[in-house]
Amino acid sequence: MDSGRLERIYRDYIACLNARDWDALGRFVDGAVEHNGMALGLAGYRRMLEQDVAAIPDLHYVVGLLVVQPPHVAARLLFDCTPEGRFLGLAVDGRRIRFSENVFYGFAQDRIARVWSVVDKAAIEAQLAASGHG
Amino acid sequence: MDSGRLERIYRDYIACLNARDWDALGRFVDGAVEHNGMALGLAGYRRMLEQDVAAIPDLHYVVGLLVVQPPHVAARLLFDCTPEGRFLGLAVDGRRIRFSENVFYGFAQDRIARVWSVVDKAAIEAQLAASGHG
Repeated sequence: MDSGRLERIYRDYIACLNARDWDALGRFVDGAVEHNGMALGLAGYRRMLEQDVAAIPDLHYVVGLLVVQPPHVAARLLFDCTPEGRFLGLAVDGRRIRFSENVFYGFAQDRIARVWSVVDKAAIEAQLAASGHG
Repeated sequence: MDSGRLERIYRDYIACLNARDWDALGRFVDGAVEHNGMALGLAGYRRMLEQDVAAIPDLHYVVGLLVVQPPHVAARLLFDCTPEGRFLGLAVDGRRIRFSENVFYGFAQDRIARVWSVVDKAAIEAQLAASGHG
Protein backbone atom coordinates (compact mmCIF):
# COMPACT_ATOMS: atom_id res chain seq x y z
CA MET A 1 0.00 0.00 0.00
CA ASP A 2 1.05 3.55 -0.72
CA SER A 3 2.22 5.46 2.38
CA GLY A 4 0.26 8.61 1.47
CA ARG A 5 -2.92 6.56 1.30
CA LEU A 6 -2.15 4.84 4.62
CA GLU A 7 -1.54 8.23 6.25
CA ARG A 8 -4.94 9.47 5.01
CA ILE A 9 -6.68 6.38 6.40
CA TYR A 10 -4.95 6.88 9.75
CA ARG A 11 -5.89 10.56 9.95
CA ASP A 12 -9.49 9.66 9.11
CA TYR A 13 -9.36 7.12 11.97
CA ILE A 14 -8.23 9.84 14.39
CA ALA A 15 -11.00 12.14 13.13
CA CYS A 16 -13.46 9.29 13.75
CA LEU A 17 -12.28 9.01 17.37
CA ASN A 18 -12.49 12.76 17.92
CA ALA A 19 -16.02 12.76 16.49
CA ARG A 20 -16.98 9.82 18.78
CA ASP A 21 -18.33 8.23 15.60
CA TRP A 22 -18.24 4.71 17.03
CA ASP A 23 -20.50 3.28 14.36
CA ALA A 24 -17.85 4.12 11.76
CA LEU A 25 -15.07 2.40 13.72
CA GLY A 26 -15.36 -0.80 11.70
CA ARG A 27 -14.16 1.07 8.62
CA PHE A 28 -10.77 1.52 10.30
CA VAL A 29 -10.43 -1.36 12.75
CA ASP A 30 -10.21 -5.05 11.89
CA GLY A 31 -12.80 -7.38 13.39
CA ALA A 32 -10.03 -9.41 15.07
CA VAL A 33 -7.94 -6.48 16.30
CA GLU A 34 -5.35 -7.07 19.04
CA HIS A 35 -4.29 -4.35 21.49
CA ASN A 36 -1.05 -4.83 23.45
CA GLY A 37 -1.31 -8.56 22.88
CA MET A 38 -4.96 -8.83 23.89
CA ALA A 39 -7.46 -10.08 21.32
CA LEU A 40 -10.14 -7.44 21.83
CA GLY A 41 -11.94 -7.70 18.53
CA LEU A 42 -13.84 -4.74 17.17
CA ALA A 43 -16.49 -4.80 19.93
CA GLY A 44 -13.88 -4.91 22.69
CA TYR A 45 -11.82 -2.19 21.03
CA ARG A 46 -14.89 0.03 20.78
CA ARG A 47 -15.69 -0.64 24.44
CA MET A 48 -12.13 0.36 25.42
CA LEU A 49 -12.45 3.66 23.52
CA GLU A 50 -15.89 4.36 24.95
CA GLN A 51 -14.54 3.76 28.47
CA ASP A 52 -11.64 6.15 27.79
CA VAL A 53 -14.08 8.85 26.74
CA ALA A 54 -16.41 8.18 29.68
CA ALA A 55 -13.46 8.66 32.07
CA ILE A 56 -12.11 11.64 30.11
CA PRO A 57 -15.00 13.54 28.49
CA ASP A 58 -12.66 16.16 26.99
CA LEU A 59 -10.33 13.56 25.48
CA HIS A 60 -9.05 14.80 22.12
CA TYR A 61 -6.47 13.07 19.96
CA VAL A 62 -3.76 15.24 18.42
CA VAL A 63 -1.20 13.65 16.09
CA GLY A 64 2.13 15.17 17.13
CA LEU A 65 4.31 13.00 14.95
CA LEU A 66 3.50 10.42 12.31
CA VAL A 67 5.81 7.86 10.74
CA VAL A 68 4.38 5.71 7.99
CA GLN A 69 5.95 2.67 6.37
CA PRO A 70 3.29 0.29 5.08
CA PRO A 71 1.93 -1.87 6.59
CA HIS A 72 2.86 0.03 9.78
CA VAL A 73 2.01 3.43 11.21
CA ALA A 74 3.72 4.91 14.27
CA ALA A 75 2.16 7.93 15.93
CA ARG A 76 3.07 10.15 18.84
CA LEU A 77 -0.30 11.30 20.15
CA LEU A 78 -0.58 14.35 22.38
CA PHE A 79 -3.25 14.82 25.03
CA ASP A 80 -4.26 17.82 27.13
CA CYS A 81 -7.28 16.86 29.20
CA THR A 82 -8.96 16.52 32.61
CA PRO A 83 -9.79 12.93 33.60
CA GLU A 84 -12.63 12.99 36.12
CA GLY A 85 -11.52 10.27 38.53
CA ARG A 86 -8.71 7.76 38.32
CA PHE A 87 -6.67 7.31 35.16
CA LEU A 88 -4.05 4.56 34.78
CA GLY A 89 -4.53 3.91 38.48
CA LEU A 90 -3.68 7.52 39.38
CA ALA A 91 -6.07 9.80 41.26
CA VAL A 92 -6.23 12.61 38.72
CA ASP A 93 -9.65 13.81 39.98
CA GLY A 94 -10.36 16.53 37.47
CA ARG A 95 -6.90 18.04 37.34
CA ARG A 96 -5.58 19.06 33.94
CA ILE A 97 -2.81 16.82 32.65
CA ARG A 98 -0.73 16.75 29.49
CA PHE A 99 0.85 13.56 28.28
CA SER A 100 1.79 11.62 25.21
CA GLU A 101 1.19 8.15 23.86
CA ASN A 102 3.67 6.51 21.51
CA VAL A 103 1.74 3.92 19.55
CA PHE A 104 2.36 1.52 16.67
CA TYR A 105 -0.30 0.07 14.38
CA GLY A 106 -0.08 -2.89 12.06
CA PHE A 107 -2.56 -2.69 9.19
CA ALA A 108 -4.12 -5.63 7.41
CA GLN A 109 -5.54 -4.44 4.12
CA ASP A 110 -6.95 -1.04 5.07
CA ARG A 111 -7.70 -1.74 8.72
CA ILE A 112 -5.87 -1.64 12.04
CA ALA A 113 -5.19 -5.24 13.05
CA ARG A 114 -2.58 -4.85 15.81
CA VAL A 115 -1.81 -2.02 18.22
CA TRP A 116 1.20 -1.63 20.52
CA SER A 117 0.66 1.38 22.76
CA VAL A 118 2.64 2.96 25.58
CA VAL A 119 1.19 5.92 27.50
CA ASP A 120 3.62 8.20 29.35
CA LYS A 121 2.41 7.44 32.86
CA ALA A 122 5.61 8.80 34.46
CA ALA A 123 4.89 12.24 32.96
CA ILE A 124 1.41 12.24 34.52
CA GLU A 125 2.82 11.19 37.90
CA ALA A 126 5.32 14.05 37.77
CA GLN A 127 2.52 16.56 37.03
CA LEU A 128 0.33 15.24 39.82
CA ALA A 129 3.25 15.38 42.27
CA ALA A 130 3.94 18.99 41.23
CA SER A 131 0.30 20.05 41.58
CA GLY A 132 -0.05 18.44 45.01
CA HIS A 133 -2.96 16.51 46.43
CA GLY A 134 -6.10 17.72 48.17
CA MET B 1 17.55 10.03 2.56
CA ASP B 2 16.73 6.51 1.50
CA SER B 3 14.76 4.55 4.10
CA GLY B 4 16.90 1.41 3.69
CA ARG B 5 20.00 3.44 4.45
CA LEU B 6 18.35 5.10 7.47
CA GLU B 7 17.35 1.68 8.80
CA ARG B 8 20.95 0.45 8.51
CA ILE B 9 22.23 3.50 10.38
CA TYR B 10 19.66 2.92 13.12
CA ARG B 11 20.51 -0.77 13.49
CA ASP B 12 24.20 0.15 13.68
CA TYR B 13 23.30 2.62 16.46
CA ILE B 14 21.55 -0.15 18.42
CA ALA B 15 24.56 -2.44 17.89
CA CYS B 16 26.76 0.39 19.24
CA LEU B 17 24.63 0.58 22.41
CA ASN B 18 24.70 -3.18 22.91
CA ALA B 19 28.49 -3.16 22.49
CA ARG B 20 28.77 -0.27 25.03
CA ASP B 21 30.93 1.38 22.37
CA TRP B 22 30.45 4.87 23.80
CA ASP B 23 33.35 6.36 21.88
CA ALA B 24 31.51 5.60 18.63
CA LEU B 25 28.29 7.27 19.80
CA GLY B 26 29.12 10.53 18.00
CA ARG B 27 28.79 8.72 14.66
CA PHE B 28 25.09 8.25 15.37
CA VAL B 29 24.08 11.07 17.70
CA ASP B 30 24.09 14.78 16.91
CA GLY B 31 26.17 17.07 19.12
CA ALA B 32 23.03 19.06 20.03
CA VAL B 33 20.69 16.10 20.57
CA GLU B 34 17.45 16.64 22.50
CA HIS B 35 15.78 13.87 24.50
CA ASN B 36 12.13 14.31 25.52
CA GLY B 37 12.51 18.06 25.14
CA MET B 38 15.77 18.29 27.12
CA ALA B 39 18.86 19.59 25.35
CA LEU B 40 21.30 16.92 26.50
CA GLY B 41 23.93 17.26 23.83
CA LEU B 42 26.14 14.33 22.95
CA ALA B 43 27.94 14.31 26.34
CA GLY B 44 24.67 14.38 28.29
CA TYR B 45 23.15 11.70 26.07
CA ARG B 46 26.19 9.47 26.60
CA ARG B 47 25.94 10.05 30.35
CA MET B 48 22.26 9.03 30.32
CA LEU B 49 23.09 5.79 28.49
CA GLU B 50 26.01 5.03 30.78
CA GLN B 51 23.77 5.55 33.82
CA ASP B 52 21.17 3.19 32.32
CA VAL B 53 23.80 0.50 31.91
CA ALA B 54 25.24 1.10 35.39
CA ALA B 55 21.75 0.58 36.86
CA ILE B 56 21.00 -2.37 34.56
CA PRO B 57 24.22 -4.22 33.74
CA ASP B 58 22.40 -6.81 31.60
CA LEU B 59 20.55 -4.16 29.56
CA HIS B 60 20.25 -5.32 25.95
CA TYR B 61 18.34 -3.51 23.21
CA VAL B 62 16.16 -5.63 20.93
CA VAL B 63 14.33 -3.98 18.04
CA GLY B 64 10.86 -5.51 18.09
CA LEU B 65 9.35 -3.27 15.46
CA LEU B 66 10.85 -0.64 13.19
CA VAL B 67 9.02 1.96 11.11
CA VAL B 68 11.15 4.18 8.90
CA GLN B 69 10.06 7.25 7.01
CA PRO B 70 12.98 9.66 6.54
CA PRO B 71 13.86 11.77 8.42
CA HIS B 72 12.11 9.79 11.18
CA VAL B 73 12.54 6.36 12.71
CA ALA B 74 10.07 4.83 15.15
CA ALA B 75 11.12 1.76 17.10
CA ARG B 76 9.48 -0.53 19.59
CA LEU B 77 12.35 -1.73 21.74
CA LEU B 78 12.02 -4.84 23.90
CA PHE B 79 13.87 -5.38 27.16
CA ASP B 80 14.28 -8.44 29.39
CA CYS B 81 16.61 -7.53 32.22
CA THR B 82 17.29 -7.29 35.96
CA PRO B 83 17.82 -3.71 37.24
CA GLU B 84 19.86 -3.85 40.44
CA GLY B 85 18.15 -1.17 42.51
CA ARG B 86 15.47 1.33 41.61
CA PHE B 87 14.37 1.87 38.02
CA LEU B 88 11.93 4.63 37.01
CA GLY B 89 11.37 5.20 40.71
CA LEU B 90 10.34 1.57 41.27
CA ALA B 91 12.13 -0.78 43.67
CA VAL B 92 13.00 -3.52 41.21
CA ASP B 93 15.94 -4.76 43.31
CA GLY B 94 17.31 -7.40 41.01
CA ARG B 95 14.03 -8.90 39.92
CA ARG B 96 13.69 -9.84 36.27
CA ILE B 97 11.37 -7.56 34.31
CA ARG B 98 10.24 -7.42 30.70
CA PHE B 99 9.05 -4.18 29.20
CA SER B 100 8.96 -2.16 26.02
CA GLU B 101 9.92 1.34 24.99
CA ASN B 102 8.16 3.04 22.10
CA VAL B 103 10.53 5.67 20.79
CA PHE B 104 10.71 8.14 17.91
CA TYR B 105 13.89 9.63 16.47
CA GLY B 106 14.30 12.65 14.24
CA PHE B 107 17.48 12.51 12.16
CA ALA B 108 19.46 15.50 10.94
CA GLN B 109 21.72 14.36 8.13
CA ASP B 110 22.82 10.94 9.36
CA ARG B 111 22.56 11.55 13.09
CA ILE B 112 19.89 11.38 15.79
CA ALA B 113 18.95 14.96 16.66
CA ARG B 114 15.69 14.51 18.59
CA VAL B 115 14.29 11.63 20.63
CA TRP B 116 10.77 11.21 22.01
CA SER B 117 10.68 8.13 24.23
CA VAL B 118 8.01 6.48 26.37
CA VAL B 119 8.89 3.48 28.55
CA ASP B 120 6.06 1.15 29.60
CA LYS B 121 6.26 1.82 33.34
CA ALA B 122 2.75 0.44 33.95
CA ALA B 123 3.86 -2.96 32.63
CA ILE B 124 6.78 -3.01 35.07
CA GLU B 125 4.51 -2.03 37.97
CA ALA B 126 2.14 -4.89 37.09
CA GLN B 127 5.04 -7.40 37.08
CA LEU B 128 6.38 -6.15 40.42
CA ALA B 129 2.91 -6.34 41.96
CA ALA B 130 2.54 -9.92 40.68
CA SER B 131 5.95 -11.00 42.02
CA GLY B 132 5.37 -9.48 45.44
CA HIS B 133 7.80 -7.58 47.59
CA GLY B 134 10.41 -8.83 50.07
